[in-house]
Amino acid sequence: MFTNVIQPRFSETDALGHINNNTYGIWFEAARESIYKIFIPDLDAKKFNLIMAHCSYDFLAEVFFGKEVIIKTIVEKIGNSSFNLAHAVYQDGHLCTTSKSVMIHFNHQKKKSVIIPEHIREELEKNIYTHSWPVKLQDLNT
Amino acid sequence: MFTNVIQPRFSETDALGHINNNTYGIWFEAARESIYKIFIPDLDAKKFNLIMAHCSYDFLAEVFFGKEVIIKTIVEKIGNSSFNLAHAVYQDGHLCTTSKSVMIHFNHQKKKSVIIPEHIREELEKNIYTHSWPVKLQDLNT
Amino acid sequence: MFTNVIQPRFSETDALGHINNNTYGIWFEAARESIYKIFIPDLDAKKFNLIMAHCSYDFLAEVFFGKEVIIKTIVEKIGNSSFNLAHAVYQDGHLCTTSKSVMIHFNHQKKKSVIIPEHIREELEKNIYTHSWPVKLQDLNT
Amino acid sequence: MFTNVIQPRFSETDALGHINNNTYGIWFEAARESIYKIFIPDLDAKKFNLIMAHCSYDFLAEVFFGKEVIIKTIVEKIGNSSFNLAHAVYQDGHLCTTSKSVMIHFNHQKKKSVIIPEHIREELEKNIYTHSWPVKLQDLNT
Repeated sequence: MFTNVIQPRFSETDALGHINNNTYGIWFEAARESIYKIFIPDLDAKKFNLIMAHCSYDFLAEVFFGKEVIIKTIVEKIGNSSFNLAHAVYQDGHLCTTSKSVMIHFNHQKKKSVIIPEHIREELEKNIYTHSWPVKLQDLNT
Repeated sequence: MFTNVIQPRFSETDALGHINNNTYGIWFEAARESIYKIFIPDLDAKKFNLIMAHCSYDFLAEVFFGKEVIIKTIVEKIGNSSFNLAHAVYQDGHLCTTSKSVMIHFNHQKKKSVIIPEHIREELEKNIYTHSWPVKLQDLNT
Repeated sequence: MFTNVIQPRFSETDALGHINNNTYGIWFEAARESIYKIFIPDLDAKKFNLIMAHCSYDFLAEVFFGKEVIIKTIVEKIGNSSFNLAHAVYQDGHLCTTSKSVMIHFNHQKKKSVIIPEHIREELEKNIYTHSWPVKLQDLNT
Repeated sequence: MFTNVIQPRFSETDALGHINNNTYGIWFEAARESIYKIFIPDLDAKKFNLIMAHCSYDFLAEVFFGKEVIIKTIVEKIGNSSFNLAHAVYQDGHLCTTSKSVMIHFNHQKKKSVIIPEHIREELEKNIYTHSWPVKLQDLNT
């Protein structure tokens, strides 16, 4: 499980006074950096070899500017050339947003999916989370 | 069915050379303006009374800067205080992205959902789409 | 002079209830598309050969969601490998924002500036604006 | 002087493979949070009482995804109801971007500027920077 602490930015709010729902995808992208590093250790954008096939969001409670946000990210499942992630957003002792996504290991020159190499699969497997999800509030800091 | 034509902005691309997947939610928000107007005819942000409960995206093909994008939006279903939308993105003769969302008629002061009034429901019902979805390419301009 | 009409997007507002000041740069980038086309007629992002060296913004009045915005863009000056633009934002009969920018004709492989070719210079020169700037409200639709 | 360390987000890049120039304003807004706290200690967006009147940017070198960015922020000058800030962006041992902005202490209900109270002025004055600006690379970590 990966943990990211994010300080909401004022520009990420909208006229409803809360974080705009388009912001969460940007936060989750930031939260996937540890996973990107497994595929591209130097994070060189030119070597980027992942693409998103699907994602979904459930907005459970509003998130506000001015208080830090905790994002938990887990690997749910690993396929031949794809893997499934789940994200959860917590603020001020509340679970606020959950999200799932499917990422594909992808060759951008050939425009086709590529089998995940064994050494990367092993790293991803270390992060498969088999406990109850989303993480309970009392377990947030563990 | 609502049709929006959007010119992708250069800042909406990312280092992979295509439209970043976080851009689609912003386009769909723009595409919902006709639906917002049913609820708030003058579009005064202070009267905004909708909130998103859920959304999902399927990324089928890349979208690029420099060519216009057609977005089709339909009402799928209307509940007591919520309704379901679907969006589809087309560029250059391809279906590129599909999305579904659940919107809730919401009182932001009381922080609770509100039944959709009859005159608004009637307007929404006019936009329920019962044909095959997503719209086929040959029917895009109809 | 180039004219763009933009519909503000809800996600472009912030918690102050107005358009966030980081939005204007994105609108001006969209407004420069006619200028980009002079340099890259097919707008292929891979051929992009402009870079911004400088920009400034003066925020004169708030802009709101729900009413269209008119953006006027002019060429102010053309140098050997650079040129100066000015933008102005109008909403609801008010001048709201002005901006200036310096763009450089740039070779991204060699990472150096490139002299503006004669046929492009001629096109740019057609758009040099020598009247009073920013355009007066009564002249907005001319 | 305030120091912020920011991890560039993939969605902040553009098709040129570098950080899009519209991203810097968002980073500087994040970097102003320490200054916002002087005015609104609990950072409640509803109490927000600052507005930007002017800003400018000089883009000196590209910034890339995958390496952290250091942002230095100083108070340059304090007026009756406004104050001037300067920001500088460093990555990988290079000064990449500089920026100046003018912020106004503002009453959003009455839509007018408000004199900066004495206790806030004293806090701002502690951050006036009178050394050579932008900070030299060898002094970045001091």
